[in-house]
Amino acid sequence: MKLRVIVTLKPGVLDPQGKAIQHALGSLGFDGVADVRAGKIFELEVADGTSDAAIGEMCEKLLANTVIENYRVEPVA
Amino acid sequence: MKLRVIVTLKPGVLDPQGKAIQHALGSLGFDGVADVRAGKIFELEVADGTSDAAIGEMCEKLLANTVIENYRVEPVA
Repeated sequence: MKLRVIVTLKPGVLDPQGKAIQHALGSLGFDGVADVRAGKIFELEVADGTSDAAIGEMCEKLLANTVIENYRVEPVA
Repeated sequence: MKLRVIVTLKPGVLDPQGKAIQHALGSLGFDGVADVRAGKIFELEVADGTSDAAIGEMCEKLLANTVIENYRVEPVA
């Protein structure tokens, strides 16, 4: 089964990459960009029947740094 | 208004990061992971009324390398 894991920085954590992108968009002439937050997305193909607990463990052990990042898992049709 | 831009590698483009994650998950004892594709996600806060064309241009000029990446824009409620 196919899953999507979206990893984003926790609110309040400084996002220098996002800030750099925001400034770059401004210098490219795109005004009106109030904020940019950058994150990661992983599309996993896992065996059917893989438990939510195992998927959560994959996220917490490897895919996300839970000290500064949130993650959420979405099924992919 | 808030938007989410999801940038993923085009099918067929080698994803060394995904492969490394797949092997790491295996060595952590998570078997049954057939494939991993890594990508980027950007959450943008833009002025209301920003046109789809302008958003597309932001993606094509900066957020995605359209030679090897696909992007799609999703509204965020």
